[in-house]
Amino acid sequence: MILVCSEGLSASQIDAIRDVLTRRGLDSDVSESHGRTLVSVRDEPGALEDLSVDRIPGVDSVIRTGSPYPLAALADRERTEVRMGAARVGDGSFTVVAGPCSVEDRKQLLETAAAVRSAGGDGLRGGAFKPRTSPYSFRGLEDEGLALLAEAREVTGLPVVTEVLDTRDVERVAAVADVLQLGSRNMHNAPLLREAGASGKAVLLKRGMASTLAEFLLAAETVLGAGGTDVILCERGIRSFDPGMRNILDLNAVPALRRMTHLPILIDPSHGAGRASLVPSLALAAAAAGADGLLIEVHPRPEMSRSDGSQALLPDALASLVRRCRAVAEIAREE
Amino acid sequence: MILVCSEGLSASQIDAIRDVLTRRGLDSDVSESHGRTLVSVRDEPGALEDLSVDRIPGVDSVIRTGSPYPLAALADRERTEVRMGAARVGDGSFTVVAGPCSVEDRKQLLETAAAVRSAGGDGLRGGAFKPRTSPYSFRGLEDEGLALLAEAREVTGLPVVTEVLDTRDVERVAAVADVLQLGSRNMHNAPLLREAGASGKAVLLKRGMASTLAEFLLAAETVLGAGGTDVILCERGIRSFDPGMRNILDLNAVPALRRMTHLPILIDPSHGAGRASLVPSLALAAAAAGADGLLIEVHPRPEMSRSDGSQALLPDALASLVRRCRAVAEIAREE
Amino acid sequence: MILVCSEGLSASQIDAIRDVLTRRGLDSDVSESHGRTLVSVRDEPGALEDLSVDRIPGVDSVIRTGSPYPLAALADRERTEVRMGAARVGDGSFTVVAGPCSVEDRKQLLETAAAVRSAGGDGLRGGAFKPRTSPYSFRGLEDEGLALLAEAREVTGLPVVTEVLDTRDVERVAAVADVLQLGSRNMHNAPLLREAGASGKAVLLKRGMASTLAEFLLAAETVLGAGGTDVILCERGIRSFDPGMRNILDLNAVPALRRMTHLPILIDPSHGAGRASLVPSLALAAAAAGADGLLIEVHPRPEMSRSDGSQALLPDALASLVRRCRAVAEIAREE
Amino acid sequence: MILVCSEGLSASQIDAIRDVLTRRGLDSDVSESHGRTLVSVRDEPGALEDLSVDRIPGVDSVIRTGSPYPLAALADRERTEVRMGAARVGDGSFTVVAGPCSVEDRKQLLETAAAVRSAGGDGLRGGAFKPRTSPYSFRGLEDEGLALLAEAREVTGLPVVTEVLDTRDVERVAAVADVLQLGSRNMHNAPLLREAGASGKAVLLKRGMASTLAEFLLAAETVLGAGGTDVILCERGIRSFDPGMRNILDLNAVPALRRMTHLPILIDPSHGAGRASLVPSLALAAAAAGADGLLIEVHPRPEMSRSDGSQALLPDALASLVRRCRAVAEIAREE
Repeated sequence: MILVCSEGLSASQIDAIRDVLTRRGLDSDVSESHGRTLVSVRDEPGALEDLSVDRIPGVDSVIRTGSPYPLAALADRERTEVRMGAARVGDGSFTVVAGPCSVEDRKQLLETAAAVRSAGGDGLRGGAFKPRTSPYSFRGLEDEGLALLAEAREVTGLPVVTEVLDTRDVERVAAVADVLQLGSRNMHNAPLLREAGASGKAVLLKRGMASTLAEFLLAAETVLGAGGTDVILCERGIRSFDPGMRNILDLNAVPALRRMTHLPILIDPSHGAGRASLVPSLALAAAAAGADGLLIEVHPRPEMSRSDGSQALLPDALASLVRRCRAVAEIAREE
Repeated sequence: MILVCSEGLSASQIDAIRDVLTRRGLDSDVSESHGRTLVSVRDEPGALEDLSVDRIPGVDSVIRTGSPYPLAALADRERTEVRMGAARVGDGSFTVVAGPCSVEDRKQLLETAAAVRSAGGDGLRGGAFKPRTSPYSFRGLEDEGLALLAEAREVTGLPVVTEVLDTRDVERVAAVADVLQLGSRNMHNAPLLREAGASGKAVLLKRGMASTLAEFLLAAETVLGAGGTDVILCERGIRSFDPGMRNILDLNAVPALRRMTHLPILIDPSHGAGRASLVPSLALAAAAAGADGLLIEVHPRPEMSRSDGSQALLPDALASLVRRCRAVAEIAREE
Repeated sequence: MILVCSEGLSASQIDAIRDVLTRRGLDSDVSESHGRTLVSVRDEPGALEDLSVDRIPGVDSVIRTGSPYPLAALADRERTEVRMGAARVGDGSFTVVAGPCSVEDRKQLLETAAAVRSAGGDGLRGGAFKPRTSPYSFRGLEDEGLALLAEAREVTGLPVVTEVLDTRDVERVAAVADVLQLGSRNMHNAPLLREAGASGKAVLLKRGMASTLAEFLLAAETVLGAGGTDVILCERGIRSFDPGMRNILDLNAVPALRRMTHLPILIDPSHGAGRASLVPSLALAAAAAGADGLLIEVHPRPEMSRSDGSQALLPDALASLVRRCRAVAEIAREE
Repeated sequence: MILVCSEGLSASQIDAIRDVLTRRGLDSDVSESHGRTLVSVRDEPGALEDLSVDRIPGVDSVIRTGSPYPLAALADRERTEVRMGAARVGDGSFTVVAGPCSVEDRKQLLETAAAVRSAGGDGLRGGAFKPRTSPYSFRGLEDEGLALLAEAREVTGLPVVTEVLDTRDVERVAAVADVLQLGSRNMHNAPLLREAGASGKAVLLKRGMASTLAEFLLAAETVLGAGGTDVILCERGIRSFDPGMRNILDLNAVPALRRMTHLPILIDPSHGAGRASLVPSLALAAAAAGADGLLIEVHPRPEMSRSDGSQALLPDALASLVRRCRAVAEIAREE
């Protein structure tokens, strides 16, 4: 990084600046430009985050020269393709992971999984451990839910994406999941990110409800730094000021992340919309924006759903939507 | 509207509530349900907005029964189609209005207009009066800009969409424009909305930077109430918490507004993105989300642009983008 | 400003950068630092806003060296004191401007004005022209409202702060007002800012609902650049994601603006709270945060108010609140 | 809750609505009002959250009748006072918990703790486990940090408030802490909330960066439901759209929460400001708004701080600030 000093600093003021850097273990170089002194330091990741430049008298501003997330950054890397059962996420196909918000019972899950399969889906989603805002809400079937997911995979061949909430559960969820999902509420949960990264499983990381893209990539960096290699990013809607909308799906994130990272990007139009009637339009828009696929909620009887019934598609709406999304994705990829 | 009273109110407390309503000119009816008194009032538009229900002791909550924007509401109305030169916005086609942010000089405008024409565009945009945040920024060529727009229409046949900022300018801008644009900064400028509505011209109304969809439709209602009939809504990105993004394009608005209003909806991916590299993906996403078309910025030499150069496409990128957007729009319309 | 170029640019690439600047009328200088070329340009206000640096190949980032709002910036200037009748805003006293949201009738206004006077208030607020979101809402008594405000001043001696909405009305509002109020909805209305600045009257400028502090000061700069000298800034709550709160009063703005500008700062706790029960705490907090005073809404019969009744204090709550705010302000000023 | 049905539903349509409720285990009653059928159901906490009313055909809207957070709700309860060493939070005093962001070394901590003590502070804060956005940032001294906190308490008598990040660490952190802090990033981390609630320790719960007050109280409800009784709420700034501000301190939350809950409320002006120069004004404002006290960061050498140095006060600024805050709090309590 380059510290731009105020105009007209004395040599001893410059020395004081460099002295702070030295005491922090940072070697510095000095040059002059247009009447200002510039102090440069090797830009280790984390160094700028931990250095409160405004507390060093005489420093006006800082120019970052290195990436804050070297493992997640695009740089000149090949794009990552994540294997998920027979499918790959990020290989140029349009991957669809669908299923209920929560695993509620055997009939609901197997019925939905069969519909996902026949609609051309590539993976099955379904929560056995559910993060809920109210402590009175349904928290998932836990181990019984995991067993049902394993059975649904057995029957349909679909790989399973399911969420883990607690560092103490990573091992037992990883024993069943093909992909560990880390939810929005846990994007900033560093111990869980590290545990998931160390599990050897692919990780689907959802963006926090009010997280910047830079913070999102720092969370991915945490998973990658803990040994994870197969990380899928998932945008799922952000908070806005409009009380009429549960979330706003941020599709700017798709082309923006493409220029920032080599990791593949799924879109969750279900949480992004919050209402089933908006989901198909947003799913199509995700395909057009260049996403690598969808994470999408389907429920055979939404009025009986124990979580997020408002946003669930009916199973018979899925096949046509998947087909149209793939046709749109193909046009989006032309250039 | 129905006022839901607190449990266990006395008859005289109910009378006091009704008395406030009477003094405000509102007739009321009373019924009982589950131990609560419900007081109903005919729900005139504006009545609930102007009544501070929380200041009437004994009222717990209110259920709105009428629409706050009866002219803009979908109800059972036919969808509005707005004529713009030879094209119509909202007739099932995908309308593209393109051009520079500001009219800067004759060469820039005519060159751009010709490119819009040959790319299959339906209208020409370009600002002669520019709303700017800094008083030191370029404010537009004003009358000279209007004359250049008229010339560009003469040469290309493209109808002209251009912005008006001041009630005092409505007449002279309307003398040239085919469609009067009201910008984001003026969505809450009621005198200007009314003057534009009374002008007899079609009005393209942009959503405010932090306006809810309900507020957006109340602004449209203001134009409609002043005599306007041809109103086009335009989503152009909203404010978010991510300093890395100028705006977030809110594509949830497209399917949501479809269920709220009969007015057609254009998307401005240029302001929505803020950076040219993100624009094509967002334009395609707009088409997929079901928008009626685009308002999009093009400049032959963005580095020389006097406003919003960052988001301008080069003219030769337009033709292929328009073609792909229309192909995507077609798939989006299937069902 | 200083353009920081990418590493390893050739001489002709640097020349191309400078050539763009030259064609824009900007002289540049070049230096080298740490393997990067730095191109410096005199930082005229507006220059950076109008220059899309990202469209000039080879430029990585920019360091701003001048102020975007030289007239509003603190620099080494004395703090501005604005005369308002017998009071001054910004002279170290704690100024209270109170009154109804809208002027509704003679009795309401005179009764309120008398209460403001006897509570120790310094000015009377009241809208004769009201900006409303719904076209069906009360828009104010207009000229009749102005006449009532003049009468209330006559009777109480309190100077009048009242809003103007339309460039065409500046003259007639200025004929009565001691201070012209420009509301949140008009913070970005440059023609109105300029007309108010040219009127010779003091201007109270409210922050836009989703405006950054930098944008707020650019709006003040517009008033100052049009000839205004007496500008009072007013924070009135910003949009947030919590549908339970109408606005969030941003008190960070008080100490932050103190370090950015020489203009005095009032707080409007009424709009900032949206509910009367929260107003006293926020008024006290404003005093503690170092504001120069309050703009606060009072109504003798809030349930009969035609606008914003939810947030109006009762007149008899005012005197004690004003006294406590002034006591708090005194403690806040100690150091 | 009361489901308000659409106008003109048939008896069998009403039956279908009631049938969904019955299948979900909810008994219902029916009444008529103003041509609409109202279906009422006992409003168990969580029931409305889990029921997607929009998926039940014929239901227009819902009126909530019970509290979503019965344990945290004010109702007619006495206000909770939380014991923290010799002090109590919420007993009408103004409690100050101060200390460094992170425990960095023995000298830093003991020096700071002594300063907090002599400034009249009631508790010592300091992180041994640090939640960080970048994986390259300092994560705290962990067990060594806990030991230093225990030593500082020994020396100064100040009770210790320190954060826990991982369910697996609750026991060892609770072995040292007087109050367990749950940070903003973990407000939605239900397993951690439950584990902390079950620990027997008092819990200081920080509001999430983009959490509504209702969500904040649901998080408190989760702690209370797991057996916690002593919960302190802490507002610490929320996300906004202004990139010039790290956070916006939401002081509306203080009077609003007072009307919603019996739990005491601390304010963290350090995170709320993000910059030391703004902290004193916001601390005073918190006292004026009626907060029960402060959680505030102090560091003897902010330029050497390994986390959040920008916002740390110098120790010698603390004593005068604490004194002035308490004087302001006293005025705020008068009425």
